Amino acid sequence: MSTKAVRKILSAYEGDNPGVKANLYRILMQGRLGGTGKLIILPVDQGFEHGPARSFAVNAAAYDPHYHYRMAIEAGLSAYAAPLGMLEAGADTFAGQIPTILKVNSSNSWAGAANQAVTAGVDDALRLGASAIGFTIYPGSEDCFEMMEEVRELRAEAASVGLATVIWSYPRGGLLPKSGELALDVGAYAAHMASLLGAHIVKVKLPSAHIEQADAKKAYEGQDWSAQANRVRHVVQACFAGRRIVVFSGGAAKGADAVYQDARDIRDGGGNGSIIGRNTFQRPREEALAMLARLVNIYKGRE
Amino acid sequence: MSTKAVRKILSAYEGDNPGVKANLYRILMQGRLGGTGKLIILPVDQGFEHGPARSFAVNAAAYDPHYHYRMAIEAGLSAYAAPLGMLEAGADTFAGQIPTILKVNSSNSWAGAANQAVTAGVDDALRLGASAIGFTIYPGSEDCFEMMEEVRELRAEAASVGLATVIWSYPRGGLLPKSGELALDVGAYAAHMASLLGAHIVKVKLPSAHIEQADAKKAYEGQDWSAQANRVRHVVQACFAGRRIVVFSGGAAKGADAVYQDARDIRDGGGNGSIIGRNTFQRPREEALAMLARLVNIYKGRE
Amino acid sequence: MSTKAVRKILSAYEGDNPGVKANLYRILMQGRLGGTGKLIILPVDQGFEHGPARSFAVNAAAYDPHYHYRMAIEAGLSAYAAPLGMLEAGADTFAGQIPTILKVNSSNSWAGAANQAVTAGVDDALRLGASAIGFTIYPGSEDCFEMMEEVRELRAEAASVGLATVIWSYPRGGLLPKSGELALDVGAYAAHMASLLGAHIVKVKLPSAHIEQADAKKAYEGQDWSAQANRVRHVVQACFAGRRIVVFSGGAAKGADAVYQDARDIRDGGGNGSIIGRNTFQRPREEALAMLARLVNIYKGRE
Amino acid sequence: MSTKAVRKILSAYEGDNPGVKANLYRILMQGRLGGTGKLIILPVDQGFEHGPARSFAVNAAAYDPHYHYRMAIEAGLSAYAAPLGMLEAGADTFAGQIPTILKVNSSNSWAGAANQAVTAGVDDALRLGASAIGFTIYPGSEDCFEMMEEVRELRAEAASVGLATVIWSYPRGGLLPKSGELALDVGAYAAHMASLLGAHIVKVKLPSAHIEQADAKKAYEGQDWSAQANRVRHVVQACFAGRRIVVFSGGAAKGADAVYQDARDIRDGGGNGSIIGRNTFQRPREEALAMLARLVNIYKGRE
Amino acid sequence: MSTKAVRKILSAYEGDNPGVKANLYRILMQGRLGGTGKLIILPVDQGFEHGPARSFAVNAAAYDPHYHYRMAIEAGLSAYAAPLGMLEAGADTFAGQIPTILKVNSSNSWAGAANQAVTAGVDDALRLGASAIGFTIYPGSEDCFEMMEEVRELRAEAASVGLATVIWSYPRGGLLPKSGELALDVGAYAAHMASLLGAHIVKVKLPSAHIEQADAKKAYEGQDWSAQANRVRHVVQACFAGRRIVVFSGGAAKGADAVYQDARDIRDGGGNGSIIGRNTFQRPREEALAMLARLVNIYKGRE
Repeated sequence: MSTKAVRKILSAYEGDNPGVKANLYRILMQGRLGGTGKLIILPVDQGFEHGPARSFAVNAAAYDPHYHYRMAIEAGLSAYAAPLGMLEAGADTFAGQIPTILKVNSSNSWAGAANQAVTAGVDDALRLGASAIGFTIYPGSEDCFEMMEEVRELRAEAASVGLATVIWSYPRGGLLPKSGELALDVGAYAAHMASLLGAHIVKVKLPSAHIEQADAKKAYEGQDWSAQANRVRHVVQACFAGRRIVVFSGGAAKGADAVYQDARDIRDGGGNGSIIGRNTFQRPREEALAMLARLVNIYKGRE
Repeated sequence: MSTKAVRKILSAYEGDNPGVKANLYRILMQGRLGGTGKLIILPVDQGFEHGPARSFAVNAAAYDPHYHYRMAIEAGLSAYAAPLGMLEAGADTFAGQIPTILKVNSSNSWAGAANQAVTAGVDDALRLGASAIGFTIYPGSEDCFEMMEEVRELRAEAASVGLATVIWSYPRGGLLPKSGELALDVGAYAAHMASLLGAHIVKVKLPSAHIEQADAKKAYEGQDWSAQANRVRHVVQACFAGRRIVVFSGGAAKGADAVYQDARDIRDGGGNGSIIGRNTFQRPREEALAMLARLVNIYKGRE
Repeated sequence: MSTKAVRKILSAYEGDNPGVKANLYRILMQGRLGGTGKLIILPVDQGFEHGPARSFAVNAAAYDPHYHYRMAIEAGLSAYAAPLGMLEAGADTFAGQIPTILKVNSSNSWAGAANQAVTAGVDDALRLGASAIGFTIYPGSEDCFEMMEEVRELRAEAASVGLATVIWSYPRGGLLPKSGELALDVGAYAAHMASLLGAHIVKVKLPSAHIEQADAKKAYEGQDWSAQANRVRHVVQACFAGRRIVVFSGGAAKGADAVYQDARDIRDGGGNGSIIGRNTFQRPREEALAMLARLVNIYKGRE
Repeated sequence: MSTKAVRKILSAYEGDNPGVKANLYRILMQGRLGGTGKLIILPVDQGFEHGPARSFAVNAAAYDPHYHYRMAIEAGLSAYAAPLGMLEAGADTFAGQIPTILKVNSSNSWAGAANQAVTAGVDDALRLGASAIGFTIYPGSEDCFEMMEEVRELRAEAASVGLATVIWSYPRGGLLPKSGELALDVGAYAAHMASLLGAHIVKVKLPSAHIEQADAKKAYEGQDWSAQANRVRHVVQACFAGRRIVVFSGGAAKGADAVYQDARDIRDGGGNGSIIGRNTFQRPREEALAMLARLVNIYKGRE
Repeated sequence: MSTKAVRKILSAYEGDNPGVKANLYRILMQGRLGGTGKLIILPVDQGFEHGPARSFAVNAAAYDPHYHYRMAIEAGLSAYAAPLGMLEAGADTFAGQIPTILKVNSSNSWAGAANQAVTAGVDDALRLGASAIGFTIYPGSEDCFEMMEEVRELRAEAASVGLATVIWSYPRGGLLPKSGELALDVGAYAAHMASLLGAHIVKVKLPSAHIEQADAKKAYEGQDWSAQANRVRHVVQACFAGRRIVVFSGGAAKGADAVYQDARDIRDGGGNGSIIGRNTFQRPREEALAMLARLVNIYKGRE
């Protein structure tokens, strides 16, 4: 049964057809966080981005696409996101058991430009029973306009057939220095642009307290950004004052306590949840399941 | 979590893509019968077929499209089926809360021919977030080839975008006398043709023990068809030896005990469930909910 | 500024995109009844249906297409509906001054079959700045399935580009006797079918107290249908319990008092308004303006 | 230089793009009647309708397509209308010398039904440099809805690329008796329907004083229809009160004096001109040129 | 009811279909300036261009997309312009309440090139019920030809379906020095190019008295350009001698008195109005409403 929290979230997607809302509903009602308005997404696109060994050697079972479906289902997560082949390799076995997000563009370690290749389409998403497509943009990149134009086309097509769109918005490239990629102003801006492009779910990295853009400094003055929850709150604000679902990634694999603290900060800052890949599948299965169980508890406000 | 019963059913749809299976999974996992392999579908197309007053006057609350969504959800049914306008009038409020089946053709009381008008399309189903389309064929009708060609086109389009197809197969018209419409041989034949046309869910009427076709009589000789469960078993057999989901309608509104006995016979004969419209919404709401609760119990084998 | 009455009406169109709602809003906010939730539409398709002399000879100024635009604007009506040529002949002069409804199919006095020709398309409606398309179906006609399939295509195309669809639902032809065309059960059924086909505005004739269909008699027993307002209420009920806008035509030209009483009954029965053609343009201009002014007053509850 | 008469005519085509207006302008400014608002069109489709010998044997030079181009140009006519092959056979030689109207449907003497075949398209008209397409409808015919749907498509396509549409509206077939085809009410109705279908130039036959439709009689009572000029005036009125160009054909070949009187009546009744085929090319060339010269004089008001 | 001022403006759009004119009419008749021929547009694309904090931190309520819809409606403005996500987030709630302009391309602070990404399309504009699309070109930029080709495609598609096109014409990039971007000759040139590209509404910045181009100096000699109203008059002249609607932006947030003086100069120079974003939403709500009320008064000639 629907909950008040979920109804409130869906009511903000007022320009969307019932098909898109049904798919957002499925994600929001799935698993252990179903109905809370919070969500945890398992993304497994690191093999494309960093190569298989860097991604899976530490936990060799994770070479198998079925491993990730099972992990997402057994841990009671909200959705599972992966590129075409990874999704297709388990799509029949696990059909309907968990909402899937088809990542439709991907980069790789040898890419010279801050860009990605479009590697799947809306027809694939429908055929595979996915609930959403996922697309990465690199604000700041020299190819950013091209990426935005690609997502504009794919998002319009997806929405017309009732699929949601998740935008990974990762500032990178061009005039933006490496040191500024995680800056608060940069991250909030990236989240805002994803919202403006029509993302139904915005995915950004947890920002640091650094302010990168000289022109933006004034807007951030006089407020204390040292607490991560405050920074999360600002990013949520940048997504139409909370009218869009925002999930955060923690970036590189790290200690479990840091992962838990991130989740508490996301929760306390009003974020909707975590998208957590390497920190899941680069741990032994039982350890990962235990960690995800604690994350669920955190998002439920129990610890 | 998926169950053995559901996995077994889905494994028989081996030519279908994961999108179709995900939608069948959603129907099979929904509500109180979720996971049992049994299902109850609420269809509300009687307004089109018989007019609004004949359908709803006895329980005036049922004029409101939201009434039926709520009934299907609160009773814990498996899916809700209706024509375009009826579905659209609640599609946003109840988005994702129950799998829907968009009935894409409809007849009416004044139709001279045994045929139906195509009144919605696959694009509507996607836009409204439906899990399946529903289509009626009238085997026996002079227009039957046309209807079969229509469902062939719509089924192919629907399956390509991950939607299931439910075929209402109702022998009627042409050389078939009224007296033969419910005959066992005719009903089994109708179910078989629906399967052959690619129906993912076959919907037929509970057959009588009468054998209509002279040429078929020999094939039915020497078996006792007096028990309804045996007749159900034969229809299931006609649907690829149980490789397709088969649901039965009981026809006109009748006493609750008859409805319960039908459900027991469907269950005992290996049928997958009931599609039950007038017997639901033409009763007062509380009475309908009580009846549906007992039907759930029957399909769970508890009475 | 929007009103509570208009917001309530629009909220029922929950499956529609904002473009369709904006066009319904324009109609509901136009003219003297703007914001009340009531509306009066001027239709001028009688020239096509009955020929020019029968339509306009009694008031020769009405041969000029500009006459009708001016009438609708000066009388403060809600919308003006006409076939392609009639609309086009004033579309530039009066662009934007009143919402228009492009009637996209038309019959004529010599038609042998109860059918109509499709005489305009959605592209014409967009090009001419119309707010809606209008389409007639003849429930009961032997060609009814064909007409339903035509409106299904046109309605889907129109809604996708933000145009509303008005369905004229006029029982006629086939097995339906002339005497039954205005029967209450028949009219309510016709209104229900228009709603099921996805009409945003349903247009039917004011029904008589006669019940035509033998099978429907029981559903109407025990209620007093002698008051026209009660009959209107039933038709509104048949349009998804009031979730769709319903307007009524009074049919042939008649005395002004009868027109006023019809409007009072429509208002008291919860109908949304009148579509009034011949009773407007077949009167001298000043008389017509005076009559429309009184109708506005009636719908405002002032007399 | 444009004239007041032409500007007034063009200003009524307010829903049309400048391309359509430029082509109407070309016709209205061509030849000896250029600028007067009057026009004479030479149509040569009788070969298709009646066979070549019945059309051309009496004046064998007329078998040659160049003959008609030369006739139209030398006589200073406004436009030349013919089917595809006839037009194409002179299109290069006379390119640009006279506005052409490509007749895009045609019947023949063996046709069982009152219908025509579509024998050319808008692409042909553009390729041949035509100013307009011509299309015949048969109001009254059992196939009339089909013909209207064909012209709706062709007219929309033609107008979108700046070509005008001439509709030949000839009541015929179905429930309409032969005796009623030329009736005043029938002719006015036919002209009105052509206008409603979006014709830029309406072509009808000169009507008789007979009133055919029982229902229409009342509308014509009390007026004297014995004068042909009055009947012309009524047809013009039926074409949006004079907002559309209307040309009249005189039908079968007849005496020159009758042709002249027809033209005087068309002129005096406010019609825009004549479309005159057989009465032209079935006369010897010099005689035809002399007759056309007198017709020009009549339309100029000189006799 | 239409006014003389509005009719005069619309009559200049003589190549446009009635759909485009109806949308221009809606903008010109909306709000407190409705009917005056003057207009004030609220644009909220600064979040895309400068990031959310720089845009909204000073008035945090403005992070919410509904804030801007409400501001535009309550202040009685003429239209509201924003990128896809911003518009979509309120499109249903405010459907029809104010004409919207969908900004279909957008830049951002990290863009290396003077270019923008196409981030929405005509299909989106129709679906969201917008009256126009908005597009930015950067005359002077190395990518200017590409931008012009993009707007050519989008403008043609929009106009064919009855949507107006607003061109933001901002000289920038390439051989044009920063110091020349606001020069009078440059601004008039930019406005002229927008007109030539088919803009229905031209949006430029208020120009300075500087003349940038050596070749243009002679043309501006001998006239006194020190008065801003004279410079506005020249820009209006450059837009086809006043045949196109021209609105001016004032640029960065500034003192209210400067804003008022700009409006007086626009009015006195014959400009059609202001497009005023940051100067609106970066003020507290009550202060913004008061300022807009005064601007309305200025455009009405009352102060």
